[in-house]
Amino acid sequence: MSEHVMVCEVGPRDGLQMAKSVMPTEAKCAWIGALAASGLREIEVGSFVPAKLIPQMADTDAVVRFSRGIPGLTVVALAPNLRGAEAALAAGAHRISIPVSVSEGHSRANLNRSPDEQVAVVAKIVAWMREAGDKAEIEVACSTAFGCSIDGAVPEHAVVRIASALAEAGVSQIALADTVGYANPAQIKSVVRAVRAEIGPVLRGLHLHDTMGLGIANALAGLEAGIRDFDSALAGLGGCPFAPGASGNIVTEDLVFMLESMGFETGIDLAKLIAARGLLHAGLPAEPMHGQLAKAGIPRTFQKAA
Amino acid sequence: MSEHVMVCEVGPRDGLQMAKSVMPTEAKCAWIGALAASGLREIEVGSFVPAKLIPQMADTDAVVRFSRGIPGLTVVALAPNLRGAEAALAAGAHRISIPVSVSEGHSRANLNRSPDEQVAVVAKIVAWMREAGDKAEIEVACSTAFGCSIDGAVPEHAVVRIASALAEAGVSQIALADTVGYANPAQIKSVVRAVRAEIGPVLRGLHLHDTMGLGIANALAGLEAGIRDFDSALAGLGGCPFAPGASGNIVTEDLVFMLESMGFETGIDLAKLIAARGLLHAGLPAEPMHGQLAKAGIPRTFQKAA
Repeated sequence: MSEHVMVCEVGPRDGLQMAKSVMPTEAKCAWIGALAASGLREIEVGSFVPAKLIPQMADTDAVVRFSRGIPGLTVVALAPNLRGAEAALAAGAHRISIPVSVSEGHSRANLNRSPDEQVAVVAKIVAWMREAGDKAEIEVACSTAFGCSIDGAVPEHAVVRIASALAEAGVSQIALADTVGYANPAQIKSVVRAVRAEIGPVLRGLHLHDTMGLGIANALAGLEAGIRDFDSALAGLGGCPFAPGASGNIVTEDLVFMLESMGFETGIDLAKLIAARGLLHAGLPAEPMHGQLAKAGIPRTFQKAA
Repeated sequence: MSEHVMVCEVGPRDGLQMAKSVMPTEAKCAWIGALAASGLREIEVGSFVPAKLIPQMADTDAVVRFSRGIPGLTVVALAPNLRGAEAALAAGAHRISIPVSVSEGHSRANLNRSPDEQVAVVAKIVAWMREAGDKAEIEVACSTAFGCSIDGAVPEHAVVRIASALAEAGVSQIALADTVGYANPAQIKSVVRAVRAEIGPVLRGLHLHDTMGLGIANALAGLEAGIRDFDSALAGLGGCPFAPGASGNIVTEDLVFMLESMGFETGIDLAKLIAARGLLHAGLPAEPMHGQLAKAGIPRTFQKAA
């Protein structure tokens, strides 16, 4: 049996929030349905943020409720604070992802709080969830863990400090995010190892962007450093408001192709995944779609991991 | 001191031969001049093939003679046979690159010979060059070493067999080429190690394409397997006539960014490299240019390896 690698599709959240237009709710649901039908078992479907700030996410409640109806799917929703977490739980999210920026500048710009203040917010959310009977998992995505377009380089010890504080606050799973796509493979390995040395298996995943063309190489570096959980977006959707010119998340199709080609089992059917691009395009016709595999076609030598 | 990695720019040969239009000789020379000015020390500037087959390469003699005038530059030219090698030497190429396909189908389609027949051609070229006083280096690029769009999967033992035969024929440097871009990182490491076990340091480089989006990850895998010599093309120019939809070579800018970010020294100035895209575009205005770094800009955290 091949080793399993979990791929969490974040296009409906991280991809759509940066899109120039708003995907209609019905189109979102049809797309999420197609993503799940390809074999994706975790999808981040939206975020509970004020609609006036991110109008693309105004229908997250409806999208979470729809997604809950898909058998076997873990429905993930982002929430930046307790109010958002409460809404996510009420809608039925299985997992709530809370962002915590490692860099001061990104934290202020994105959350209007310092990193330490946001760690305190997370501690409150964890305590609230325990009282609520742990009905949903709490996950933290450590933004700007590999560099920040506002503050510049982010030292490894700062990532370790925030990750440790989050683990102490009771967070059971943490992902390190290369929010602006500044990471390189050597840095990925070094930061992953330093954080794991402090918090062990609480470090679970990587969230990578392809801004500089190193996204899939960075995923490989993470894989080699023992990470078995990656965020990605179909057609490399997304971007970052604080990284002009930045491209989006790493491309799900290309990532799955690499993983399966290397003998890792993802449970995902590549042909169905590529077909789901049609529903993305139908819902957001003006949005550019990236990804090499879909352009070239699945090569005849491809063999799915058994 | 950082470890050095050699990047050989192959855009003027592998990139231009697939372009829809022909770049004028003057534009080629201006572009090659800009590439060399960015710090690239090896450039494959053209191929000595019949102009009726590849009209983009009809001016290779003039381009090689021009490039020889650039101080410190190793001028590489491709030649598929002895006649081409003689022309390359006469023009003044420092290194002559001979293609040998590992797969029968690609060998027949590209060279109208079997792999073994082409190995015999190489042996003759090596003998001729010895008689000519070793005035130029002979290098072999093993095409379809990681898969073939005609024959499908290429077994590792076939690559080892061809590489060993070439080493026995006296070839002093061999590169393994993922001609159609089917390779994955695990395969890169495995094939590199298997070939090196047989021919040692005669295995020198990797020539990678980004067809499936794994090109830079494959370069990382090669780097980790000890390869310190990579072909790439500015703006990811190129393609493959036998891989429909395939994109081109790995992007020089993105590769150099990865290498320098990881602490490897390339001698290449990224800003000047990106500026050279302007001359490529001037000479081939209709050709699409790839590459993430040029789109996003060099990040503020970037530090050149010392």
